[in-house]
Order: sequence, then C-alpha cells, then structure tokens
Amino acid sequence: MTTLGKSTFLWLGLALTASAGIAIAQKAAELDPAVAARQAQMRLVGYHTGILGAMAKGEREYDAELARLAATNLNTAASFENATMWIEGTEQGVAEGTRAKAEIWSDSAGFAEKYDQLGQASAAMIDAAGTDLDALKAAMGDLGGACKACHEDYRGPENK
Amino acid sequence: MTTLGKSTFLWLGLALTASAGIAIAQKAAELDPAVAARQAQMRLVGYHTGILGAMAKGEREYDAELARLAATNLNTAASFENATMWIEGTEQGVAEGTRAKAEIWSDSAGFAEKYDQLGQASAAMIDAAGTDLDALKAAMGDLGGACKACHEDYRGPENK
Repeated sequence: MTTLGKSTFLWLGLALTASAGIAIAQKAAELDPAVAARQAQMRLVGYHTGILGAMAKGEREYDAELARLAATNLNTAASFENATMWIEGTEQGVAEGTRAKAEIWSDSAGFAEKYDQLGQASAAMIDAAGTDLDALKAAMGDLGGACKACHEDYRGPENK
Repeated sequence: MTTLGKSTFLWLGLALTASAGIAIAQKAAELDPAVAARQAQMRLVGYHTGILGAMAKGEREYDAELARLAATNLNTAASFENATMWIEGTEQGVAEGTRAKAEIWSDSAGFAEKYDQLGQASAAMIDAAGTDLDALKAAMGDLGGACKACHEDYRGPENK
C-alpha cells in the first residue's frame, strides 16, 4: 500500500462520500425524471470507480480484464451528452433530492470543462487498468482529481 | 397519429411497464451494488426512450437536436460492457429487487444477441431522430422490438 499517495486516499474518501450521497437519495420514482437519470449516471460512475478503487486499495484481487472493462464502462458513463439530463430549473433548492448547484447552468462552460476532465481521466484509465496494478494506481490520481474538481464547484451540500 | 402502427403502441406500452417496474424497485442503497448499477443503466435507457416516445406520440414537440441527443444517449446507455454488472448469482430469487432471469447466464449468447439488438436499434435511431418526426416514428418499431425481445426472454415477473 506504500505506493498509494495522499491524493489517492483523498479521492477514495471522496468516492465513498459520493456513494453515500447517492445512497441517501430518495427513491428514484419520487424524483424529477431528469434528476433520477443524472443520479443513475452518477451511480454508474461510482459503481465502476468502486471496482477500480477496491483493486487499488488491495480490497479486491487485481484482474486486468475486469479492471479494463470497469474503466471502459466508467468512460461510457462519462460520455453521455449533458443536454438531455442537466435541464435548467432542476437545481438544488428547486428540484427535490438533487445537489446540482445553479452554477452548472450559470457557468455551463466551466461545468462542461470539468465533465470533459472526467472523460479524459476515464479514457486514460482504460489502458492503465488493463496494464497492471501499478499503472491502475497511478491513473487513480487524475480520476479522483476529476471527481473532486467537479464536486467542489458544482455539487451543493447534502440535502436534509 | 395515423402513421403510428400497432407495434409502436405495443412498445410504448411496454416502455411504460418497464418504467413502472423500475419505479417500484427498492431504494438503490438496499440493493446489491451490481443490481443497482443495472437498474441505473435501465433507467438511462428508459429515460431517453421516453423522450423519443413522447415526441413520437405527439405529447412533446419534436425537436431534432434534442431527439438526436436523446438517441445518442440511449445508444451510450446500450453500450456498457455486460461483464461488470451482470454478475452470476445476482438473478431474481437470489438477489433482492431484481427481475433478471437465470437464463441471462445459462444462455449468455442469447442474452448478448438481444443486447446487441438494442445497440443496433439505438444506433439507427440517432440518424432517424435527427432527421424528422416521421423518420423517428419509423425507427421506433425496431427499438421497441429490441426492448420487447429481451424482456420476454430474460426478464422475470414483477417482484412482490
């Protein structure tokens, strides 16, 4: 575990926080369909990041093929076009059960840039994850950085 | 609405049934993570099919760009690799809250074929949806057929 740096642990913590945030969300049936669809997308991001993270932490045996497929699916989950789900008027405080900040729409270029960062980090992870465990661990920093950067700017506090 | 054939209405009904099936599912936090991830994938399929279906039915104004993006996202949702989420031992009767039949694993080639049918129908929908409303309506048949074919063979009855 000594090859895991501070930043890796930081993102692992963030990933867990993200999962918990989704876990306490309301039943999808009670949400605005666009909000439920976004949370489904985030669930797919989190689920596949979780597989890679468990291998990085040594909680799960490294399997090159499964790691490659998890990274491929993570990249797919980061490839949705935003326009169908990130609909104006569905931000936190207006729509129920969402933590999407109004800045997603008032600073749409910045949001798109952060989303693209996830696309790039997950694309790089495909090769890395399929190579070996050290390469997977090394690629985790950029991936966690992409999660963190977007959440810091565009995700609001937990809903009560 | 006269250009809509029987099969179109059939799939619309099936799509609604599918949504209801997901809507009554348990909170994702209570499910096996693999089951929750599959249901997230199905939610993204259903959400984007719903946008296209609403336009086809005249319940929502046809918008070529939005239709094209919805079809693009539908195709993305149909592009996940199955191996990370369709994990043996997570079928109906074993894992909670799922309708995935054991045949998904005992007849994996058949399941893969049906999944590929959704990939092809959603890929064809991208061009069709962006062309005009008649082309969108015409492409709905194959899309609904793909949903129906897989659900008939690989989806079990509603959970009580």
